[in-house]
Amino acid sequence: MTKNIAIIGASGYTGAELIRLIATHPDLEIAALAANSKAGQEMAQVFPHLRHLELPRLVTWEEIDFSGIDLCFCALPHKTSQEVISQLPGHLKIVDLSADFRLRDPAEYKRWYGNDHAAPELQKEAVYGLTEFYRREIAKARIVAGTGCNAATGQYVLRPLISASVIGLDDIILDLQCGVSGAGRSLKENLLHAELSESTNAYGVGGTHRHLGEFDQEFSQLAGREVRIQFTPHLAPMNRGILATAYLSGDPAAIHDALATAYADEPFLEVLPMGETPSTHHVRGSNFCHIGVVADRIPGRAIVVAALDNLTKGSSGQALQNANLMLDLPESTGLMLAPCFP
Amino acid sequence: MTKNIAIIGASGYTGAELIRLIATHPDLEIAALAANSKAGQEMAQVFPHLRHLELPRLVTWEEIDFSGIDLCFCALPHKTSQEVISQLPGHLKIVDLSADFRLRDPAEYKRWYGNDHAAPELQKEAVYGLTEFYRREIAKARIVAGTGCNAATGQYVLRPLISASVIGLDDIILDLQCGVSGAGRSLKENLLHAELSESTNAYGVGGTHRHLGEFDQEFSQLAGREVRIQFTPHLAPMNRGILATAYLSGDPAAIHDALATAYADEPFLEVLPMGETPSTHHVRGSNFCHIGVVADRIPGRAIVVAALDNLTKGSSGQALQNANLMLDLPESTGLMLAPCFP
Amino acid sequence: MTKNIAIIGASGYTGAELIRLIATHPDLEIAALAANSKAGQEMAQVFPHLRHLELPRLVTWEEIDFSGIDLCFCALPHKTSQEVISQLPGHLKIVDLSADFRLRDPAEYKRWYGNDHAAPELQKEAVYGLTEFYRREIAKARIVAGTGCNAATGQYVLRPLISASVIGLDDIILDLQCGVSGAGRSLKENLLHAELSESTNAYGVGGTHRHLGEFDQEFSQLAGREVRIQFTPHLAPMNRGILATAYLSGDPAAIHDALATAYADEPFLEVLPMGETPSTHHVRGSNFCHIGVVADRIPGRAIVVAALDNLTKGSSGQALQNANLMLDLPESTGLMLAPCFP
Amino acid sequence: MTKNIAIIGASGYTGAELIRLIATHPDLEIAALAANSKAGQEMAQVFPHLRHLELPRLVTWEEIDFSGIDLCFCALPHKTSQEVISQLPGHLKIVDLSADFRLRDPAEYKRWYGNDHAAPELQKEAVYGLTEFYRREIAKARIVAGTGCNAATGQYVLRPLISASVIGLDDIILDLQCGVSGAGRSLKENLLHAELSESTNAYGVGGTHRHLGEFDQEFSQLAGREVRIQFTPHLAPMNRGILATAYLSGDPAAIHDALATAYADEPFLEVLPMGETPSTHHVRGSNFCHIGVVADRIPGRAIVVAALDNLTKGSSGQALQNANLMLDLPESTGLMLAPCFP
Repeated sequence: MTKNIAIIGASGYTGAELIRLIATHPDLEIAALAANSKAGQEMAQVFPHLRHLELPRLVTWEEIDFSGIDLCFCALPHKTSQEVISQLPGHLKIVDLSADFRLRDPAEYKRWYGNDHAAPELQKEAVYGLTEFYRREIAKARIVAGTGCNAATGQYVLRPLISASVIGLDDIILDLQCGVSGAGRSLKENLLHAELSESTNAYGVGGTHRHLGEFDQEFSQLAGREVRIQFTPHLAPMNRGILATAYLSGDPAAIHDALATAYADEPFLEVLPMGETPSTHHVRGSNFCHIGVVADRIPGRAIVVAALDNLTKGSSGQALQNANLMLDLPESTGLMLAPCFP
Repeated sequence: MTKNIAIIGASGYTGAELIRLIATHPDLEIAALAANSKAGQEMAQVFPHLRHLELPRLVTWEEIDFSGIDLCFCALPHKTSQEVISQLPGHLKIVDLSADFRLRDPAEYKRWYGNDHAAPELQKEAVYGLTEFYRREIAKARIVAGTGCNAATGQYVLRPLISASVIGLDDIILDLQCGVSGAGRSLKENLLHAELSESTNAYGVGGTHRHLGEFDQEFSQLAGREVRIQFTPHLAPMNRGILATAYLSGDPAAIHDALATAYADEPFLEVLPMGETPSTHHVRGSNFCHIGVVADRIPGRAIVVAALDNLTKGSSGQALQNANLMLDLPESTGLMLAPCFP
Repeated sequence: MTKNIAIIGASGYTGAELIRLIATHPDLEIAALAANSKAGQEMAQVFPHLRHLELPRLVTWEEIDFSGIDLCFCALPHKTSQEVISQLPGHLKIVDLSADFRLRDPAEYKRWYGNDHAAPELQKEAVYGLTEFYRREIAKARIVAGTGCNAATGQYVLRPLISASVIGLDDIILDLQCGVSGAGRSLKENLLHAELSESTNAYGVGGTHRHLGEFDQEFSQLAGREVRIQFTPHLAPMNRGILATAYLSGDPAAIHDALATAYADEPFLEVLPMGETPSTHHVRGSNFCHIGVVADRIPGRAIVVAALDNLTKGSSGQALQNANLMLDLPESTGLMLAPCFP
Repeated sequence: MTKNIAIIGASGYTGAELIRLIATHPDLEIAALAANSKAGQEMAQVFPHLRHLELPRLVTWEEIDFSGIDLCFCALPHKTSQEVISQLPGHLKIVDLSADFRLRDPAEYKRWYGNDHAAPELQKEAVYGLTEFYRREIAKARIVAGTGCNAATGQYVLRPLISASVIGLDDIILDLQCGVSGAGRSLKENLLHAELSESTNAYGVGGTHRHLGEFDQEFSQLAGREVRIQFTPHLAPMNRGILATAYLSGDPAAIHDALATAYADEPFLEVLPMGETPSTHHVRGSNFCHIGVVADRIPGRAIVVAALDNLTKGSSGQALQNANLMLDLPESTGLMLAPCFP
């Protein structure tokens, strides 16, 4: 039976990506699309690539009649998201793509994001949306908090290794490159083609990137002790894709085994044969994540490299995967699109 | 009921694109994949982005058992294609993506391609594969010849205008930009990233590009007189996409009407509101073609701009659309993927 | 003897390009840099690639002491430029890079730019800055109006052909692709990497692009009759470069001769051997313009393709070439940098 | 007095970059250009961007009359280089851009490159070409071995820190992204635009990249003990540029001090203010190297990021800087070109 969904924040890239995925989903119907700054416009004006679809005209979120909606995706900026969600009907299932419900501790939220949380009770209720590791909780949740795209990539590398106790916890380094769509459709000088093309640079250097809040929370809980990793993201001259390169102490074979075992039955996580590493182009536009392990020449040191698409597996694909679980649909419905290469 | 298909020439970009599309096609099963130069390899080695699919190992085309195959896609280079196809079982339905069966006149074939045709009887039997204009013939055909990607784009602009007699036939100019995947996965210096990035250049200038053979054949037949257009393709620094800009004499409103009327019921052709023009990014990875018409400041002159993805609507998407017809499946099955933007 | 120059509007791309070129110019000294919105900042903050140079801190243009300045470059937006220039000291030599002084007829200016001209007397005094064709006038001028970058490219193709009467004047078509830096450092959605990369689209279609005002003025004057060309620019997914493809009636050999003769002694204009065409990558970052001619298969039709760098020969390089003339320096001083390929 | 130089291996990117730089060098004259595979061709055919220069036609290196040559650049592949250089006149000054003379120990050479060295005596004589650290030796040398481009970048980060004893030597991690021109003008599938664009991937993972031979040699000598770093290069979707991100233990302020002190008088090395990091776009096409230091949130941990252009400071610019020293010319002659941004 078809489920009705709404998307609030449909004029950004993650909103558009949700619509792209849902366009071929057999069980979901887009009943309402909201984007307060562009209310009244047709989606074809905002995103001409969706022109072929019959989509509802954009409205403000306040105009949506939620009575017939089974699930609502919120693709709003953080802070706005918590304010809107706190006003939505209490029965409504919600997948939030913002940062607002990722951190369980309100003090940590304030430390990383600067403001007091406007909906601390909802924050308590929300389930962290890294599907493969919170599947059961997500299926029963009312509010699921989508993870950061960098945070997802890093956790796909590190969670099974922490759980299996095959790596040292005090010298974890995560170097990461992210495509520009990760920064959204915002008018910033450094996101212009003329500035970014032929360029790469680090940002959020020194442990200031907000996704570290998620790493701290999740890795520490998993390890049963405080874990603080070193993390440097880079902005890469491409539209989509994250490549994470982790430098780890541990036995490379044990590391490969831990990953291969953890993801053996996962539909979207592909562990490459020992010694091979992935490329972002090979997951582009898809919900897949490729992970490779290489032994370093220095004994007891390994490099793990993971690639995913920040807009799909890192954001909207993950959101849809979680929505499927929450709506009791097969988890991978609508998500088996092959990567769009070249 | 599932149909079994084979792909010969599976190690090139059009082969990979066929597999990407068929991956989510509910009624087709890939029974065999051939690539003589890479026989014995797994597809995941040749195209790591297809790693998640369970695909048959690559074989030589001679090794394929065609008894259970309903339809075979041939994605070989021209000349090789005719040699292989002439040796395939006579009952086998074939969609050829090469240039070998596009031109009905063997003399024209030789003029544009240099060699005598090795299978002139098959050439006679083959149906030209521009779906929207040869639908009925394609549905009954045994061999369908996929069009050139540039040739498809130009015809989507010009056929309805010639048919409706709304443009002058003696001063048609077609300027076109094509992404680099149109040149295939070949090791040529001008296709290197270091050469092509930050660069655009014309090629096949002066009426030497082979797709002119298709324009000559189709437009002349349609007009009932000889039509010779001027055509200049450019190589654009992008992977996918064709943008064709046509300079025409005629009444702009009549031109827009003729296109809107011709494509009113077509699932993949979108005529934009008068005055708007398309962008290749908005059809990327999809089977859609967007067409826009603008009146020039010079009375009686119009500009028509069309955008499609050379690998999808310009090649493998078209091939699948034709295969659906030949197999009596709904024409758009597996082809409604939304463009992958950004 | 070193000449002192000032640059007003130093925080845009054409301002930065002027500084890049002047950095190795032996006879010019940058005495003042103005950018009212960023006054007080160091250039290294605004353009980190100029960090190695000892440059004056940015000020407002009102703060500049023009008493010791020999020549001032104005790289302001149009309309602002005329307002500022009308307030500069009357003795000051000025090279304006905006559109404000390109059109000699105030009515034409208003038609294309929408506002009444604020300094019509200066407009009369200004010399059109297409160096190769206004060299003598530029050398004696006080105010030189830099041309549009597209306008320069089109004129390099067409002026010698109109002068030599070797082409028809009523069916000139100029199709053009321009890199994104031509649009400046402005925060517009369509200039974002995520929007432009993998994309090409036409803009200013139908005879609405303002550079047509320059074509109309210059070609009509040259021909001694009204000339109206058809012109469609495209935005190409690259940072620098313009490629213009002209479709012309005329004898291809005569066309090649006319161009080769006209540019035989020009230091920056390279006419390729008959049949060869240029690429933007091969002029990138330089003041050179490459032009090629090809005969079409249709008798009496030719294609001429020209490539230059919009920021250099199309704008700041031209400005410096003109400044050299105005300051009685050898015309090509500081401009012989080879293209930066790849 | 003008010096005559020759370039052997002029048909590759480093050869072309040498010519670009020498084009505006006041004291050098290109007397001969060799490229055995393209002997007989004009440079304008091989590199159309050099069309404006009057350059000698390409010959084989055996055809060059070295009697009037003051210095010869060798831009050949490794192994070929040693074979050719061993046959050149013994008096000739040589700057070699290949890997052949970088490693002083023949056993190390064989370990990293697989073959016995063909000219071990010359290997002994050669001086390692990292200008800032071997200036005096280079000025007196007959043969100078250009460094690897990645090796140069890493050493600019690490040498002053090892010398000043401000970092731990047992946990140095160097993560690096390199533009595609670093791989040369070779016809390899992974260097095609269609494969590389929108893609990033690690390569030479696990301590197998040959530039590690240089790191091992230089860092161990500098430290007076064996130093083995972890090093992962990535291929970035851009033409030029290297960004190195180093993860280090040590006091961030002391690290910044050591770099600022070491490079205080260097013309090409720019240490950014504490907390700022560089971008490759801001050194593109220039001989500059920008270095930034950031303190990590983890006490005693620092991140150092360096950017340079692999073809200029990483290769041909370095070669010219060394040639200037060897020819007793001011070291920075011809090398003060500002970066070509955007």
